Amino acid sequence: MREVVIIGSGQTPVGEHWGKSLRHLGHDAIMAAMKDADISRPDALYVGNMLSGQLAGQEHLGALLADFVGLRGIEAMKVEAACGSGGAAVRVGVMAVASALADIVVVCGIEKMTDTGAAETTSGLATAADQEYEVSQGISFVGLNALLMRRYMHEYNVPDKAFAGFSINAHANGVNNPNAMFRSPISEAAYLRAGMICDPINLMDSSPVCDGAACVVLAAADRFPGRAKARVLASAVATDSLAVHDRDEPLFLRAAAESSRRAYAQARVMPNDIDLFEVHDAFSIMAALSLEAAGFAPQGAGWQLAADGEIGIAGRVPISTMGGLKARGHPVGATGVYQVVEVVQQLTGQAGANQVKGATIGMAQNIGGSGATVVTHILGAV
Amino acid sequence: MREVVIIGSGQTPVGEHWGKSLRHLGHDAIMAAMKDADISRPDALYVGNMLSGQLAGQEHLGALLADFVGLRGIEAMKVEAACGSGGAAVRVGVMAVASALADIVVVCGIEKMTDTGAAETTSGLATAADQEYEVSQGISFVGLNALLMRRYMHEYNVPDKAFAGFSINAHANGVNNPNAMFRSPISEAAYLRAGMICDPINLMDSSPVCDGAACVVLAAADRFPGRAKARVLASAVATDSLAVHDRDEPLFLRAAAESSRRAYAQARVMPNDIDLFEVHDAFSIMAALSLEAAGFAPQGAGWQLAADGEIGIAGRVPISTMGGLKARGHPVGATGVYQVVEVVQQLTGQAGANQVKGATIGMAQNIGGSGATVVTHILGAV
Repeated sequence: MREVVIIGSGQTPVGEHWGKSLRHLGHDAIMAAMKDADISRPDALYVGNMLSGQLAGQEHLGALLADFVGLRGIEAMKVEAACGSGGAAVRVGVMAVASALADIVVVCGIEKMTDTGAAETTSGLATAADQEYEVSQGISFVGLNALLMRRYMHEYNVPDKAFAGFSINAHANGVNNPNAMFRSPISEAAYLRAGMICDPINLMDSSPVCDGAACVVLAAADRFPGRAKARVLASAVATDSLAVHDRDEPLFLRAAAESSRRAYAQARVMPNDIDLFEVHDAFSIMAALSLEAAGFAPQGAGWQLAADGEIGIAGRVPISTMGGLKARGHPVGATGVYQVVEVVQQLTGQAGANQVKGATIGMAQNIGGSGATVVTHILGAV
Repeated sequence: MREVVIIGSGQTPVGEHWGKSLRHLGHDAIMAAMKDADISRPDALYVGNMLSGQLAGQEHLGALLADFVGLRGIEAMKVEAACGSGGAAVRVGVMAVASALADIVVVCGIEKMTDTGAAETTSGLATAADQEYEVSQGISFVGLNALLMRRYMHEYNVPDKAFAGFSINAHANGVNNPNAMFRSPISEAAYLRAGMICDPINLMDSSPVCDGAACVVLAAADRFPGRAKARVLASAVATDSLAVHDRDEPLFLRAAAESSRRAYAQARVMPNDIDLFEVHDAFSIMAALSLEAAGFAPQGAGWQLAADGEIGIAGRVPISTMGGLKARGHPVGATGVYQVVEVVQQLTGQAGANQVKGATIGMAQNIGGSGATVVTHILGAV
């Protein structure tokens, strides 16, 4: 297998982009990444996206975006794994370069969720869950996560404010990220008085509905000597049942554990070798469960890393270093690529005030559904 | 790059499967393919699908199908390129094995189009076209193809029945395929009196709305010695603008020409080395344009291959040998995989009454939109 490196990246700010359509949002991120990589024509474009068909009446984003950015003719396609679509697209890009079927590819994660009403967006997001076994019973995607969080609080007897630290950390880091949707710090008091979305998930436990696009340029190391910004040390995907009730242990993200294990084996590292970890904190319960599944805390103790301040930039396990899904925002199909872009920022010392000092190995983990698809990438500094 | 071979395949009959949901349809094809390949657990499942989010309220088919067929845990994701989704998923499977990131993978193309009303299905299919530049003007996907066919008839001054041969050939071949949706032969008279769908496209020029799932099992040749049923000689994708009006020559499928050229170069063959060609005859105009773009006829003369009987099983360029999209049926995201399965049937002498004698090289070309994404695979006999 050829060594795969990242030679460029780009992103749009995350927010409510009412003045831009999908193609314009994709254009901005793709052109930024190609400029950063100093390339003019990649071999292929892989697009991570979940909802364009349902919310914009537009499938076929691969060819659409390739054409709109002036790359008519190149290979292109869309990859979908619910909220894990961006990570899955990175995975396809890695395979394309590693196979030598391509030398250089662009991966673009993109989502536009704010052009439709809340009911349509909520219905769209519920297509990540099992339509026949879960959604038909009337539950929403937030509802599923609320059940998990309630169960966690019950099983492990955690205090009411157990999850506050995740939101506080994400917002603190978002302050310094010009591309983050929310750039205001929050206090524990603000967390505790936040309105309930779906008990026990409050507004501060939940990532926002938003728009955004992010890109990385992947290349064969031997074809682009001296151009690498980061090395791809591992790429792994694992799955679990969509339906949460169909798992032996709903509070154990088995796919996250397996995806992490495969990634650690490929990269030949252990959790304590990871200098920063971009977790999929779509809801704060997911951050806790991810930390546990990936081996950073025992089951039932993930929340304590947040409570003890271990997840901060200078902590033992810095997570959501640029704001995470909570504060940078969660344009669902784009998120997995944003995470990888942020790991590259950290490994190249471009993370500004949020720089994790001496970071040489970073991990990004993107989750589809309530843990049904988990994509893990580990990157190393050059 | 590792050599990639096909070691098994499976398919459901194409038709109106009102008694089965997406997961059951996928189950039937995946289990058939795994049994045919004599494997119990692949490394990954790549699902080609276009419309499940819009028509079934179900995205995230990769993990869903992996779980339902007993493969919980394996890598899985969905690949989308409109009606070219199946071919694109095969492409991802080839990259996975070629890269050595997987040794054996299952590719499943699946679509269920008959559970919704005609308006929803028509709207769904239109998401293959450019929503902002084409669909917003009120045109449907059939309408776009009707414009192309009308223009072709005008430019090349072809007779009214120029396209009859494509439909007659497809139906003749469908008769002998137990998995085909339509198994009745049609006459030229029947073609000429067929009702208009969208002038000049009549009922017999148009592939049906239907359900189906097809699978191939791809493996690394060196890991499965003696198990190959066919060799993957080439895998290529090229794109064009989604919007037909935005092309210099709307009657030239530039992406099909480029995708074919890349595939011929990889396989080191010329068009006259191809023993059979599974074309994307979603509409008969597409069959004519595909034959021209792939180098089997000069521009404006593709229809003559049909008129002259050259496309039959014993002809110079056998196409749609198991019924094609017209008679086997066109469950859109599944079609590209059906085509590959049928090439394998031909190369292994399993095509029954439709066997192309001595076939050693076969090509499958899957088209997304009106030529915006074109996926070409060339397979060789073992």
